[in-house]
Amino acid sequence: MPSPRFDDQMIFQVAFITHDIEKTKTWMAEFFDMPVPETVVTDPLSKSEAEYKGKPTEARGKLAFFNFGNTTLELIEPDNEPSCWREFLDRNGPGFHHFAFKVKGMKAKTATFEKDGYPLLQKGEFVGGRYAYFDTESQLGALIELLEFDKERAA
Amino acid sequence: MPSPRFDDQMIFQVAFITHDIEKTKTWMAEFFDMPVPETVVTDPLSKSEAEYKGKPTEARGKLAFFNFGNTTLELIEPDNEPSCWREFLDRNGPGFHHFAFKVKGMKAKTATFEKDGYPLLQKGEFVGGRYAYFDTESQLGALIELLEFDKERAA
Repeated sequence: MPSPRFDDQMIFQVAFITHDIEKTKTWMAEFFDMPVPETVVTDPLSKSEAEYKGKPTEARGKLAFFNFGNTTLELIEPDNEPSCWREFLDRNGPGFHHFAFKVKGMKAKTATFEKDGYPLLQKGEFVGGRYAYFDTESQLGALIELLEFDKERAA
Repeated sequence: MPSPRFDDQMIFQVAFITHDIEKTKTWMAEFFDMPVPETVVTDPLSKSEAEYKGKPTEARGKLAFFNFGNTTLELIEPDNEPSCWREFLDRNGPGFHHFAFKVKGMKAKTATFEKDGYPLLQKGEFVGGRYAYFDTESQLGALIELLEFDKERAA
Protein backbone atom coordinates (compact mmCIF):
# COMPACT_ATOMS: atom_id res chain seq x y z
CA MET A 1 0.00 0.00 0.00
CA PRO A 2 1.52 3.33 -0.98
CA SER A 3 2.33 5.87 1.71
CA PRO A 4 -0.67 8.03 2.54
CA ARG A 5 1.68 10.98 1.92
CA PHE A 6 2.09 10.29 -1.81
CA ASP A 7 0.05 8.79 -4.65
CA ASP A 8 3.04 7.53 -6.64
CA GLN A 9 6.82 7.37 -6.59
CA MET A 10 7.46 9.70 -9.51
CA ILE A 11 9.60 12.79 -8.91
CA PHE A 12 7.46 15.16 -10.96
CA GLN A 13 9.69 18.23 -10.61
CA VAL A 14 13.15 19.06 -9.24
CA ALA A 15 13.37 22.75 -8.40
CA PHE A 16 16.17 25.25 -7.99
CA ILE A 17 16.06 28.75 -6.53
CA THR A 18 17.98 31.50 -8.30
CA HIS A 19 18.68 35.19 -7.80
CA ASP A 20 18.28 35.85 -11.53
CA ILE A 21 16.02 33.55 -13.52
CA GLU A 22 16.84 35.15 -16.87
CA LYS A 23 20.54 34.55 -16.40
CA THR A 24 20.12 31.04 -14.99
CA LYS A 25 17.65 29.87 -17.62
CA THR A 26 19.84 31.21 -20.43
CA TRP A 27 22.86 29.38 -19.00
CA MET A 28 20.86 26.21 -18.44
CA ALA A 29 19.36 26.15 -21.94
CA GLU A 30 22.82 26.39 -23.45
CA PHE A 31 24.29 23.90 -20.98
CA PHE A 32 21.66 21.21 -21.57
CA ASP A 33 21.04 22.12 -25.22
CA MET A 34 17.37 22.89 -24.68
CA PRO A 35 15.11 25.73 -25.83
CA VAL A 36 15.04 28.75 -23.52
CA PRO A 37 11.70 28.42 -21.72
CA GLU A 38 9.36 31.35 -21.14
CA THR A 39 9.27 32.92 -17.70
CA VAL A 40 5.89 32.91 -16.01
CA VAL A 41 4.95 34.80 -12.85
CA THR A 42 2.78 33.33 -10.13
CA ASP A 43 -0.57 35.02 -9.56
CA PRO A 44 -1.11 37.96 -7.21
CA LEU A 45 -2.50 37.23 -3.75
CA SER A 46 -6.06 38.00 -4.86
CA LYS A 47 -5.90 34.95 -7.11
CA SER A 48 -3.22 32.79 -5.47
CA GLU A 49 -4.58 33.04 -1.91
CA ALA A 50 -0.95 32.33 -1.01
CA GLU A 51 -0.10 31.70 2.62
CA TYR A 52 3.36 31.44 4.13
CA LYS A 53 3.59 30.11 7.68
CA GLY A 54 -0.15 30.52 8.07
CA LYS A 55 -0.39 34.16 6.96
CA PRO A 56 -1.43 35.60 3.60
CA THR A 57 1.61 36.73 1.61
CA GLU A 58 1.99 39.01 -1.38
CA ALA A 59 4.99 36.94 -2.48
CA ARG A 60 5.21 36.04 -6.14
CA GLY A 61 7.73 33.93 -7.98
CA LYS A 62 9.10 33.98 -11.50
CA LEU A 63 9.12 30.41 -12.83
CA ALA A 64 10.67 28.61 -15.81
CA PHE A 65 10.50 24.92 -16.67
CA PHE A 66 12.93 22.61 -18.49
CA ASN A 67 11.35 19.37 -19.68
CA PHE A 68 13.86 16.55 -19.35
CA GLY A 69 12.94 13.14 -20.69
CA ASN A 70 11.94 11.77 -17.31
CA THR A 71 11.24 14.77 -15.08
CA THR A 72 10.98 18.56 -15.12
CA LEU A 73 13.54 20.98 -13.79
CA GLU A 74 11.92 24.13 -12.40
CA LEU A 75 13.68 27.43 -11.74
CA ILE A 76 12.22 29.89 -9.25
CA GLU A 77 13.22 33.50 -8.67
CA PRO A 78 11.39 34.86 -5.63
CA ASP A 79 10.52 38.48 -4.99
CA ASN A 80 11.28 40.06 -1.62
CA GLU A 81 7.95 39.29 0.06
CA PRO A 82 7.88 36.48 2.65
CA SER A 83 7.98 33.01 1.10
CA CYS A 84 9.75 29.69 1.50
CA TRP A 85 11.59 30.62 -1.71
CA ARG A 86 12.94 33.93 -0.37
CA GLU A 87 13.75 32.45 3.03
CA PHE A 88 15.74 29.66 1.38
CA LEU A 89 17.60 32.02 -0.96
CA ASP A 90 18.53 34.36 1.89
CA ARG A 91 19.73 31.46 4.03
CA ASN A 92 21.39 29.14 1.50
CA GLY A 93 21.96 31.12 -1.65
CA PRO A 94 20.99 29.73 -5.06
CA GLY A 95 20.60 25.99 -5.38
CA PHE A 96 18.35 23.00 -5.03
CA HIS A 97 15.09 23.77 -3.23
CA HIS A 98 12.54 20.94 -3.50
CA PHE A 99 11.11 17.83 -5.11
CA ALA A 100 7.49 18.06 -6.28
CA PHE A 101 5.05 15.15 -6.35
CA LYS A 102 1.59 15.08 -7.96
CA VAL A 103 -1.24 14.14 -5.63
CA LYS A 104 -5.02 14.09 -5.43
CA GLY A 105 -6.80 15.34 -2.32
CA MET A 106 -4.56 18.11 -1.06
CA LYS A 107 -6.52 18.67 2.13
CA ALA A 108 -6.12 15.08 3.32
CA LYS A 109 -2.46 14.97 2.25
CA THR A 110 -1.75 18.19 4.14
CA ALA A 111 -3.35 16.77 7.27
CA THR A 112 -1.20 13.63 6.96
CA PHE A 113 2.05 15.58 6.50
CA GLU A 114 1.28 17.82 9.46
CA LYS A 115 0.25 14.89 11.67
CA ASP A 116 3.55 13.18 10.81
CA GLY A 117 5.61 16.21 11.84
CA TYR A 118 6.21 17.91 8.48
CA PRO A 119 4.62 21.35 8.85
CA LEU A 120 2.91 23.11 5.97
CA LEU A 121 5.22 26.02 5.09
CA GLN A 122 3.48 27.63 2.15
CA LYS A 123 0.47 27.01 -0.05
CA GLY A 124 -1.35 28.66 -2.90
CA GLU A 125 -3.72 28.30 -5.80
CA PHE A 126 -2.93 28.56 -9.50
CA VAL A 127 -5.10 28.24 -12.58
CA GLY A 128 -6.01 24.56 -12.66
CA GLY A 129 -4.67 23.51 -9.30
CA ARG A 130 -2.85 24.20 -6.06
CA TYR A 131 0.48 23.62 -4.34
CA ALA A 132 1.77 23.10 -0.83
CA TYR A 133 5.31 23.00 0.56
CA PHE A 134 6.18 20.91 3.61
CA ASP A 135 9.19 21.31 5.85
CA THR A 136 11.55 18.37 5.40
CA GLU A 137 14.61 20.61 5.66
CA SER A 138 16.11 18.99 8.74
CA GLN A 139 15.74 15.45 7.36
CA LEU A 140 16.45 15.98 3.65
CA GLY A 141 18.17 19.36 3.36
CA ALA A 142 15.36 20.31 0.97
CA LEU A 143 11.58 20.71 0.89
CA ILE A 144 8.79 18.54 -0.49
CA GLU A 145 6.08 20.14 -2.62
CA LEU A 146 2.74 18.56 -3.40
CA LEU A 147 0.95 19.62 -6.57
CA GLU A 148 -2.70 18.94 -7.26
CA PHE A 149 -4.05 19.45 -10.76
CA ASP A 150 -7.81 19.58 -11.21
CA LYS A 151 -7.47 17.92 -14.61
CA GLU A 152 -5.07 15.08 -15.27
CA ARG A 153 -1.74 16.15 -16.70
CA ALA A 154 1.00 14.03 -18.16
CA ALA A 155 4.06 13.54 -15.94
CA MET B 1 21.89 17.65 -32.52
CA PRO B 2 22.31 16.93 -28.83
CA SER B 3 24.86 18.85 -26.80
CA PRO B 4 28.28 17.25 -27.02
CA ARG B 5 28.23 17.31 -23.22
CA PHE B 6 25.39 14.80 -22.87
CA ASP B 7 23.99 11.81 -24.78
CA ASP B 8 20.40 12.26 -23.63
CA GLN B 9 18.19 14.47 -21.51
CA MET B 10 17.40 11.95 -18.80
CA ILE B 11 18.27 12.81 -15.21
CA PHE B 12 19.61 9.37 -14.29
CA GLN B 13 20.28 10.12 -10.61
CA VAL B 14 19.60 12.92 -8.12
CA ALA B 15 22.04 12.76 -5.24
CA PHE B 16 22.12 14.01 -1.66
CA ILE B 17 25.03 14.17 0.76
CA THR B 18 24.43 13.17 4.35
CA HIS B 19 26.42 12.97 7.58
CA ASP B 20 24.80 9.67 8.48
CA ILE B 21 23.59 7.43 5.68
CA GLU B 22 22.05 4.85 8.00
CA LYS B 23 19.87 7.47 9.65
CA THR B 24 18.97 9.26 6.41
CA LYS B 25 18.13 6.10 4.48
CA THR B 26 15.97 4.80 7.31
CA TRP B 27 14.09 8.09 7.44
CA MET B 28 13.76 8.22 3.66
CA ALA B 29 12.48 4.66 3.33
CA GLU B 30 9.75 5.36 5.84
CA PHE B 31 8.98 8.78 4.35
CA PHE B 32 8.61 7.54 0.77
CA ASP B 33 7.28 4.08 1.74
CA MET B 34 10.13 2.24 0.05
CA PRO B 35 12.34 -0.67 1.11
CA VAL B 36 15.46 0.30 3.05
CA PRO B 37 18.26 -0.09 0.48
CA GLU B 38 21.59 -1.72 1.29
CA THR B 39 24.58 0.51 1.87
CA VAL B 40 27.51 -0.08 -0.45
CA VAL B 41 31.00 1.38 -0.07
CA THR B 42 33.04 2.66 -2.99
CA ASP B 43 36.23 0.78 -3.78
CA PRO B 44 39.60 1.56 -2.19
CA LEU B 45 42.05 3.69 -4.18
CA SER B 46 43.85 0.60 -5.52
CA LYS B 47 40.70 -0.29 -7.43
CA SER B 48 38.93 3.07 -7.81
CA GLU B 49 41.97 5.03 -9.02
CA ALA B 50 40.05 7.98 -7.58
CA GLU B 51 41.36 11.47 -8.16
CA TYR B 52 40.15 14.67 -6.55
CA LYS B 53 41.39 17.93 -8.06
CA GLY B 54 43.98 16.02 -10.05
CA LYS B 55 45.52 14.08 -7.18
CA PRO B 56 44.92 10.48 -6.07
CA THR B 57 42.63 10.34 -3.04
CA GLU B 58 41.92 7.60 -0.53
CA ALA B 59 38.39 8.98 -0.16
CA ARG B 60 35.57 6.45 -0.10
CA GLY B 61 31.83 6.99 0.07
CA LYS B 62 28.99 5.00 1.54
CA LEU B 63 26.16 4.89 -1.03
CA ALA B 64 22.49 3.91 -1.00
CA PHE B 65 19.98 4.09 -3.84
CA PHE B 66 16.21 4.63 -3.89
CA ASN B 67 14.55 3.65 -7.16
CA PHE B 68 11.73 6.07 -7.92
CA GLY B 69 9.53 5.38 -10.92
CA ASN B 70 11.35 7.83 -13.16
CA THR B 71 14.78 8.40 -11.63
CA THR B 72 17.03 7.21 -8.81
CA LEU B 73 17.75 9.08 -5.61
CA GLU B 74 21.29 8.44 -4.34
CA LEU B 75 22.53 9.09 -0.82
CA ILE B 76 26.24 9.58 -0.18
CA GLU B 77 28.06 9.67 3.14
CA PRO B 78 31.68 10.67 2.59
CA ASP B 79 34.61 9.73 4.79
CA ASN B 80 37.09 12.38 5.90
CA GLU B 81 39.56 12.03 3.01
CA PRO B 82 39.55 14.75 0.33
CA SER B 83 36.60 14.49 -2.06
CA CYS B 84 33.94 16.67 -3.66
CA TRP B 85 31.51 14.95 -1.28
CA ARG B 86 33.43 15.87 1.88
CA GLU B 87 34.14 19.40 0.63
CA PHE B 88 30.45 19.95 -0.09
CA LEU B 89 29.33 18.55 3.28
CA ASP B 90 31.83 20.70 5.18
CA ARG B 91 30.79 23.81 3.25
CA ASN B 92 27.01 23.37 2.87
CA GLY B 93 25.94 20.71 5.31
CA PRO B 94 23.67 17.86 4.22
CA GLY B 95 21.57 18.36 1.11
CA PHE B 96 21.39 18.14 -2.64
CA HIS B 97 24.75 17.50 -4.29
CA HIS B 98 24.44 16.59 -7.99
CA PHE B 99 22.54 15.33 -11.00
CA ALA B 100 24.02 12.31 -12.79
CA PHE B 101 23.73 11.63 -16.53
CA LYS B 102 24.68 8.44 -18.36
CA VAL B 103 27.16 8.91 -21.19
CA LYS B 104 29.39 6.95 -23.51
CA GLY B 105 32.97 8.07 -24.14
CA MET B 106 34.03 9.59 -20.84
CA LYS B 107 37.37 10.85 -22.13
CA ALA B 108 35.81 12.94 -24.90
CA LYS B 109 33.03 14.18 -22.61
CA THR B 110 35.56 15.24 -20.00
CA ALA B 111 37.54 17.16 -22.60
CA THR B 112 34.37 18.95 -23.71
CA PHE B 113 33.34 19.90 -20.16
CA GLU B 114 36.82 21.20 -19.39
CA LYS B 115 37.06 23.13 -22.67
CA ASP B 116 33.72 24.76 -21.88
CA GLY B 117 34.88 25.94 -18.46
CA TYR B 118 33.49 23.21 -16.20
CA PRO B 119 36.56 21.69 -14.51
CA LEU B 120 36.80 18.02 -13.66
CA LEU B 121 36.61 17.87 -9.86
CA GLN B 122 36.77 14.17 -9.14
CA LYS B 123 36.80 10.92 -11.05
CA GLY B 124 37.06 7.23 -10.35
CA GLU B 125 36.48 3.70 -11.56
CA PHE B 126 33.97 1.19 -10.24
CA VAL B 127 33.19 -2.38 -11.27
CA GLY B 128 31.60 -1.99 -14.68
CA GLY B 129 32.23 1.67 -15.28
CA ARG B 130 33.52 5.06 -14.20
CA TYR B 131 32.31 8.44 -12.97
CA ALA B 132 33.37 12.05 -13.19
CA TYR B 133 32.14 15.17 -11.39
CA PHE B 134 32.29 18.59 -13.03
CA ASP B 135 32.13 21.92 -11.28
CA THR B 136 28.85 23.68 -12.09
CA GLU B 137 28.54 25.02 -8.57
CA SER B 138 28.62 28.71 -9.46
CA GLN B 139 26.01 28.34 -12.22
CA LEU B 140 23.68 25.70 -10.75
CA GLY B 141 24.45 25.57 -7.03
CA ALA B 142 25.15 21.86 -7.55
CA LEU B 143 27.48 19.55 -9.49
CA ILE B 144 27.02 17.46 -12.62
CA GLU B 145 28.18 13.85 -12.63
CA LEU B 146 28.72 11.76 -15.73
CA LEU B 147 28.46 7.98 -15.44
CA GLU B 148 29.75 5.56 -18.03
CA PHE B 149 28.72 1.93 -17.84
CA ASP B 150 30.69 -0.58 -19.91
CA LYS B 151 27.54 -2.63 -20.42
CA GLU B 152 24.16 -1.07 -21.11
CA ARG B 153 22.06 -0.60 -18.01
CA ALA B 154 18.40 0.32 -17.77
CA ALA B 155 17.70 3.90 -16.71
